[in-house]
Amino acid sequence: MDPAKLRELLEQVQSGARSVDDAALALKDLPFADLGYAVVDHHRALRQGVPEVILGQSKTAAQIVGIATEVARTGQNVLVSRLDPAKAHEVCRAMPALRYHEMARVATLEQAPIPRLGTRPVAVVTAGTSDLPVSEECAETLRMLGAEVERVYDVGVAGIHRLLHRRQALDATSVIIVIAGMEGALASVVGGLVEGPVIAVPTSVGYGAAFEGLAALLGMLTSCASGVTVVNIDNGFGAAFAAARILRAGARG
Amino acid sequence: MDPAKLRELLEQVQSGARSVDDAALALKDLPFADLGYAVVDHHRALRQGVPEVILGQSKTAAQIVGIATEVARTGQNVLVSRLDPAKAHEVCRAMPALRYHEMARVATLEQAPIPRLGTRPVAVVTAGTSDLPVSEECAETLRMLGAEVERVYDVGVAGIHRLLHRRQALDATSVIIVIAGMEGALASVVGGLVEGPVIAVPTSVGYGAAFEGLAALLGMLTSCASGVTVVNIDNGFGAAFAAARILRAGARG
Amino acid sequence: MDPAKLRELLEQVQSGARSVDDAALALKDLPFADLGYAVVDHHRALRQGVPEVILGQSKTAAQIVGIATEVARTGQNVLVSRLDPAKAHEVCRAMPALRYHEMARVATLEQAPIPRLGTRPVAVVTAGTSDLPVSEECAETLRMLGAEVERVYDVGVAGIHRLLHRRQALDATSVIIVIAGMEGALASVVGGLVEGPVIAVPTSVGYGAAFEGLAALLGMLTSCASGVTVVNIDNGFGAAFAAARILRAGARG
Amino acid sequence: MDPAKLRELLEQVQSGARSVDDAALALKDLPFADLGYAVVDHHRALRQGVPEVILGQSKTAAQIVGIATEVARTGQNVLVSRLDPAKAHEVCRAMPALRYHEMARVATLEQAPIPRLGTRPVAVVTAGTSDLPVSEECAETLRMLGAEVERVYDVGVAGIHRLLHRRQALDATSVIIVIAGMEGALASVVGGLVEGPVIAVPTSVGYGAAFEGLAALLGMLTSCASGVTVVNIDNGFGAAFAAARILRAGARG
Amino acid sequence: MDPAKLRELLEQVQSGARSVDDAALALKDLPFADLGYAVVDHHRALRQGVPEVILGQSKTAAQIVGIATEVARTGQNVLVSRLDPAKAHEVCRAMPALRYHEMARVATLEQAPIPRLGTRPVAVVTAGTSDLPVSEECAETLRMLGAEVERVYDVGVAGIHRLLHRRQALDATSVIIVIAGMEGALASVVGGLVEGPVIAVPTSVGYGAAFEGLAALLGMLTSCASGVTVVNIDNGFGAAFAAARILRAGARG
Amino acid sequence: MDPAKLRELLEQVQSGARSVDDAALALKDLPFADLGYAVVDHHRALRQGVPEVILGQSKTAAQIVGIATEVARTGQNVLVSRLDPAKAHEVCRAMPALRYHEMARVATLEQAPIPRLGTRPVAVVTAGTSDLPVSEECAETLRMLGAEVERVYDVGVAGIHRLLHRRQALDATSVIIVIAGMEGALASVVGGLVEGPVIAVPTSVGYGAAFEGLAALLGMLTSCASGVTVVNIDNGFGAAFAAARILRAGARG
Amino acid sequence: MDPAKLRELLEQVQSGARSVDDAALALKDLPFADLGYAVVDHHRALRQGVPEVILGQSKTAAQIVGIATEVARTGQNVLVSRLDPAKAHEVCRAMPALRYHEMARVATLEQAPIPRLGTRPVAVVTAGTSDLPVSEECAETLRMLGAEVERVYDVGVAGIHRLLHRRQALDATSVIIVIAGMEGALASVVGGLVEGPVIAVPTSVGYGAAFEGLAALLGMLTSCASGVTVVNIDNGFGAAFAAARILRAGARG
Amino acid sequence: MDPAKLRELLEQVQSGARSVDDAALALKDLPFADLGYAVVDHHRALRQGVPEVILGQSKTAAQIVGIATEVARTGQNVLVSRLDPAKAHEVCRAMPALRYHEMARVATLEQAPIPRLGTRPVAVVTAGTSDLPVSEECAETLRMLGAEVERVYDVGVAGIHRLLHRRQALDATSVIIVIAGMEGALASVVGGLVEGPVIAVPTSVGYGAAFEGLAALLGMLTSCASGVTVVNIDNGFGAAFAAARILRAGARG
Repeated sequence: MDPAKLRELLEQVQSGARSVDDAALALKDLPFADLGYAVVDHHRALRQGVPEVILGQSKTAAQIVGIATEVARTGQNVLVSRLDPAKAHEVCRAMPALRYHEMARVATLEQAPIPRLGTRPVAVVTAGTSDLPVSEECAETLRMLGAEVERVYDVGVAGIHRLLHRRQALDATSVIIVIAGMEGALASVVGGLVEGPVIAVPTSVGYGAAFEGLAALLGMLTSCASGVTVVNIDNGFGAAFAAARILRAGARG
Repeated sequence: MDPAKLRELLEQVQSGARSVDDAALALKDLPFADLGYAVVDHHRALRQGVPEVILGQSKTAAQIVGIATEVARTGQNVLVSRLDPAKAHEVCRAMPALRYHEMARVATLEQAPIPRLGTRPVAVVTAGTSDLPVSEECAETLRMLGAEVERVYDVGVAGIHRLLHRRQALDATSVIIVIAGMEGALASVVGGLVEGPVIAVPTSVGYGAAFEGLAALLGMLTSCASGVTVVNIDNGFGAAFAAARILRAGARG
Repeated sequence: MDPAKLRELLEQVQSGARSVDDAALALKDLPFADLGYAVVDHHRALRQGVPEVILGQSKTAAQIVGIATEVARTGQNVLVSRLDPAKAHEVCRAMPALRYHEMARVATLEQAPIPRLGTRPVAVVTAGTSDLPVSEECAETLRMLGAEVERVYDVGVAGIHRLLHRRQALDATSVIIVIAGMEGALASVVGGLVEGPVIAVPTSVGYGAAFEGLAALLGMLTSCASGVTVVNIDNGFGAAFAAARILRAGARG
Repeated sequence: MDPAKLRELLEQVQSGARSVDDAALALKDLPFADLGYAVVDHHRALRQGVPEVILGQSKTAAQIVGIATEVARTGQNVLVSRLDPAKAHEVCRAMPALRYHEMARVATLEQAPIPRLGTRPVAVVTAGTSDLPVSEECAETLRMLGAEVERVYDVGVAGIHRLLHRRQALDATSVIIVIAGMEGALASVVGGLVEGPVIAVPTSVGYGAAFEGLAALLGMLTSCASGVTVVNIDNGFGAAFAAARILRAGARG
Repeated sequence: MDPAKLRELLEQVQSGARSVDDAALALKDLPFADLGYAVVDHHRALRQGVPEVILGQSKTAAQIVGIATEVARTGQNVLVSRLDPAKAHEVCRAMPALRYHEMARVATLEQAPIPRLGTRPVAVVTAGTSDLPVSEECAETLRMLGAEVERVYDVGVAGIHRLLHRRQALDATSVIIVIAGMEGALASVVGGLVEGPVIAVPTSVGYGAAFEGLAALLGMLTSCASGVTVVNIDNGFGAAFAAARILRAGARG
Repeated sequence: MDPAKLRELLEQVQSGARSVDDAALALKDLPFADLGYAVVDHHRALRQGVPEVILGQSKTAAQIVGIATEVARTGQNVLVSRLDPAKAHEVCRAMPALRYHEMARVATLEQAPIPRLGTRPVAVVTAGTSDLPVSEECAETLRMLGAEVERVYDVGVAGIHRLLHRRQALDATSVIIVIAGMEGALASVVGGLVEGPVIAVPTSVGYGAAFEGLAALLGMLTSCASGVTVVNIDNGFGAAFAAARILRAGARG
Repeated sequence: MDPAKLRELLEQVQSGARSVDDAALALKDLPFADLGYAVVDHHRALRQGVPEVILGQSKTAAQIVGIATEVARTGQNVLVSRLDPAKAHEVCRAMPALRYHEMARVATLEQAPIPRLGTRPVAVVTAGTSDLPVSEECAETLRMLGAEVERVYDVGVAGIHRLLHRRQALDATSVIIVIAGMEGALASVVGGLVEGPVIAVPTSVGYGAAFEGLAALLGMLTSCASGVTVVNIDNGFGAAFAAARILRAGARG
Repeated sequence: MDPAKLRELLEQVQSGARSVDDAALALKDLPFADLGYAVVDHHRALRQGVPEVILGQSKTAAQIVGIATEVARTGQNVLVSRLDPAKAHEVCRAMPALRYHEMARVATLEQAPIPRLGTRPVAVVTAGTSDLPVSEECAETLRMLGAEVERVYDVGVAGIHRLLHRRQALDATSVIIVIAGMEGALASVVGGLVEGPVIAVPTSVGYGAAFEGLAALLGMLTSCASGVTVVNIDNGFGAAFAAARILRAGARG
């Protein structure tokens, strides 16, 4: 149940347009719906203003369908992340209303309107083509959270002019998400160029001493550019969510 | 040279109130002043709107004085971070205008007015008393960047009610910086309670398997609360700087 | 051979109801039965009062069947842990009396009565749905050891109210086993809420900086809640066994 | 305020022997006393029945004195852990009632009677003489928590007969705390010998590949003896606290 | 070319029984035979008195066949280690004289007599059934090197009496190879019981904090028993080879 | 567009042999061609004088074909590295002009002449047969960059004479690339024997404590031979590229 | 009590030259003498034929003196290892009969004759001058164990001819101990040159990626020379003890 | 003995200008001078054309003086690296001819002329002022090896324009050494800008997740710029030596 709907319901109670019994019924499955293996938190939308998110990775298809169905029942939007193609096939067969984005490995259910978040777009910047699965997860999450996305792809620092060439585009955005694997140097260069919030996402792109993203992670945490913040390796979703937190704070003043 | 001063100067040139030669003279030490061992970037204030920051840790007292003097010459404010008491003593003797904050291990020179940044305070939340050096570095940096600070100290999750008790104070802030050592669980709990931006700072408090802050760092990066971002271990300065980036973005809309 | 049977046999010898030769025959395969590749320790049940446990992970199906058959021959119960479905299929075909629990990845043979252990249930608390394989291994092991189980699932700290809501249930239990992946913060919050024994089980749920459970492991070892103990990553079996050690100590006074 | 005192006070209110105003006054500093840099949780004694514990390691002497004084004011006992001799000297000068135990690096204030916890002693078992600082921290904490201590020292597995020789002493205890550095093998051997709860404490004793206790930590976590639980490296305090949790659970039934 | 054959040849030259030209011809492929992708070192048998060993792991079946054929041509024995069943199938089809030992993952060609090495057997001691692949690789290598093997299997320290029961068998051996995964504590206990050389082999048996054998490796390196030496994780071959070095030194006096 | 072609074009403009419009047309896709998911940098050939290189590892076959086609369109040569056989099959079907080198896992398109780089060959030295995939990637890259290759294979230090035997061959080369897994000791021995540039490539050959190449990497970084430089694990391509940088510097004087 | 003395005593009992009571008195402090903080194992000399060894590192001077005095009382020899100069000063003042070897950081008490162990010397080979503290600890331990020592110092592989030059000396020894820091390559080269037992000791010499001896440790564990065994970082004592185990086995046949 | 002197001597023998006896005398201390604790390799200058280098770090002042004196005796130049001020004081008092460079922590003895190496300077590029100790060690080593040095200091990527501003200076050099701590991103940006050899030196500048230089090391090894090679953390000496190897190769053609 999202905040706007809740407020509307309570105002109806206040004005007498809706009986207390009726309101109680509408609120009856608050605060949580317990599925035995999962407790669906309908309050979260209220507390954080976002659709329910299901981390698909370590769940069975049946569990994902169970949780998504429970959420869908209340009219909220759903985003399932880290859903591999095989599992997605099973899940979408059970819930045909879900739409699967293969490159991003996310499935979405969009049944409620998504309020626009922020006045300027969020930049999603990548070092190379291999970062696409992470950047698309990030972009699709941003879209579901209401943010506009400006893609600035394949501008790794080994060819610094590709990045400098796109600087104006960066300056027109509200938050910049920098996605890079290998040594992750792009975060430092971007962090030094712009004055707005920079969220760095290390990716597991690379081999050997990249140690599955560790090199990029350490590099971004120790960036010589001040005030760059970091999320987990390959966590495009988390970076999008962090950007939405910032946009909400900005909207609130 | 800060942006306002630069704009004023250029407008004077435009209006003819100032000759080109005179303006060129004023701009003559742009873009950098090269001290041999350091290149002071007077442009950074222009690009990012902040005072010059000197990482005191691996520099000699003489180098710190050299750089700080060069910056001070142009009228900017200065913040020297990670300055241990012994080195601080030497540096402050050479530059008596500097003020040393022992708990925070920073020295500051405040000669220009600091414009207020943001309409609501930034929360600095700590898990325990041992996190004070990091939280005070953070708070003092925020002050130098123009942000108001709301301290919420010693509310670690082993006594969860201490935190819940302060929830309203948290809700009234713009950005929340969570500082915790050991397992760093406070970031997850706070991240689940509030909807605004949360910046987590792992600290090196703890021993054994805390591995000098590694446990808290990994814990914060893998937080089950969505959209929590992380900075380097003990990096109170970086968290403050990241908060300022967010406040500037909010101010810009 | 379990302690009760051994005592009975020795009392028969003492009373003359059984000849020494006959008793010696009954005891002849003590202390161990050597299968060449494995030494089945019939004394362990005597020493620790538990069924024989076979770690299925690095053994071939034939080895598992060989050991289980030897144990079954003496009338004891058997628990095979970490048995993947393919191997389980092979093992159960050879020993149809075994029952396979797929989610828990354990197979059990229950031919002797299981004495009730403890007067209050053991709580099995999980942070999320993805922790189910570990929590079910734990719960099934507790059942085989004679303990009653209270499941408190999907109460991760990102929605702290789900946990606070279940506090009374926790207070009614004897031992609390907390199972969580990612940052494992649940152990600290639970450890601060209750006064009884808390055994934390880090799980390999998560990705990137979770490093296959390392983040949760370090987080639980450095918990800010005092007196939380930890077992190996994903070791639901071990936590159940540790709980049984505690219940036995309590029974003994 | 300990539970017994609280109950007495509330019964006085119930019986009319004490006025509500008077009781409220007595309870007025609940739930916490905020010292600015620390929030003293007088409720914890209520929730967990233990004296206030102050981790001395990363606090200044002044902070320790401040917190200990606040606790002492309410009549509770105090235990300051990880207090090095130099800091202890300063702290004890300010609070002469504190008693410093150098080998254990703890200071204690014992002003309230300590109720006896458990009917049988807790065994504190060490592999070698070098583990003494950890084992004495553990033993002194047990004493402050009301448990009797049975010391079984220097019985490392390189001379297995020293341990077997002490087996009867082990069997007479309620909980066994095994403290060992280097490879920490003692935990596995003890875990296989006894049926009661075993809490393993890895120590930082050793050099090279001991990696400051990491070898012992990993060894204890992967012990081939089932149901051994582990606390942080050198955490004698935590092991004692965990033992007290077990004894309380046993007392409660 | 093994040392005995070389000596015979040179003695024939000395006595005139063989012409220099003829001897030169026989020695013509010394020191190495270069296959392009591999340099077969016929001198190694001379220098170290052992058959040619081929590490099968990262080589293609064709490369293994190429090298083995070249060695076989000179009449030496061959041992191919770390040969998985699929590759073994291919290799043995091409060289039917090879015999594959599946549990040990080695293939052997035995065409020259193997001189007996040492007067007493080498003990191969394992902690559990899961260590069999490593112990059989070790035993088969010992056999090819001429040593007699005494298997002492499944005597892990969680049931210390299984080991003490076999002590006399251990005392009758020349070198003791201890093979254990998980925490590897068996090496310390054995090292304390016997006075002869102890070679410890950590195995990758275990999960979670066993970190693929790292826990056992560190545990064995930091053993509290003096003078235990260690080889690489799962390196049954290396332990056997080290034992042979010791037996040769003993034979030489 | 390679430097020679660019210079020729500009000279034609200077001499009037080519109109400015025509030249502009030829240069029109400078500086980059943006494919959406990738920005092909036609300037790189200009800046570094090399063919376009595509890291095949984390890209889809379709992306590789897309980028390779764009590059091929301008007449440059192409090298796709880390291309596994399955993906190679797909890519080569779409671009039949590509030639796949299976052992080296690279595909090459050679449509422009490759200018000879350096007067003496580059040595590619390996410790063992298992290093072949890396050494062939290196050799093929060198060929595409114009360098002559001298292969010195299977000369690991366990048989030091195999290496000493090839010393003259090493002395006749310009740059020596040493490729070794396991402990990587070959780099130190070669570094001590020769006076020219030595580039060490650790490989992931080995098991257990080799930790996927970490042992060799650390060994090469801490070589006791002075001035040995190192590239990433298994990075045969990078070593070849580094050698080419050296040869170009030598050519320039 | 060493084996010879024990045998003599028992033979006197057998022959009637000594009364049972008298022998019992002489044996009365068997098996251990318990000092409270340490259990001195007089049986160890019997079981392993060596003097008592005290690891000085984590013990106080008082504890060392206490244990050494207890050992000395029975006439055995004593070796205190890892004794820094300051502590050595204190210990030797209390026990003037101890002799301190500063470079080796060991103190020895030699009051019983040391039987000669082995017919050929043990080689102690080092890579560089910086390895001296470890090699001297090793050599002094060997001397106390009865072995003759052949020092082959500063023959690191960066100058391979220094080692080849000493090959004959190596061939005349029984066991070769190779001590090296940095990348530890010397162990592989020596292991390939000789056929006898090779014990490798990684040292903490080096910086950066040497990671306090980790690089050498991993390098030696993954040596391409077969059958090289390894002890802990800087463990010169352990290598000597392992050599003595080998010499004893050789003596026994 | 450097190559020129050796050649001169041999030519004198050839021409009869010098007797064989006399030459033999001059060569008598070849190949090494054995000091007991160190073997001074007079051949190294011959093989690699460089002065003798002494790693001062783990040697005593007396050992350094001993080795340096032996080298000085033959007329060669000497460079002692990693010499802290206290030890330098002692060493220089014993050898007043040595000159100590405090920032670089090296001492040099320059008694033979240093032949110029290379026609263009070597660039030494640093990210920040804190990298000075490493960059000066590098620069001083280059000077002793005969190379001219171009310092490009404090051009870290957080202010990318400081680097771009110096691009022409970089293009005029033969080899570029990039020295950076924290995330080490400078190596990638420089590697993408220039076509010559780039040697990256990670430094231990930074804190927390910089892990004493590990972040920079991994970042440089996984650089997205092709062909960047890396030396050990803080190894300014090694980078200089590697540059000299390149310059020598260029000189030779």
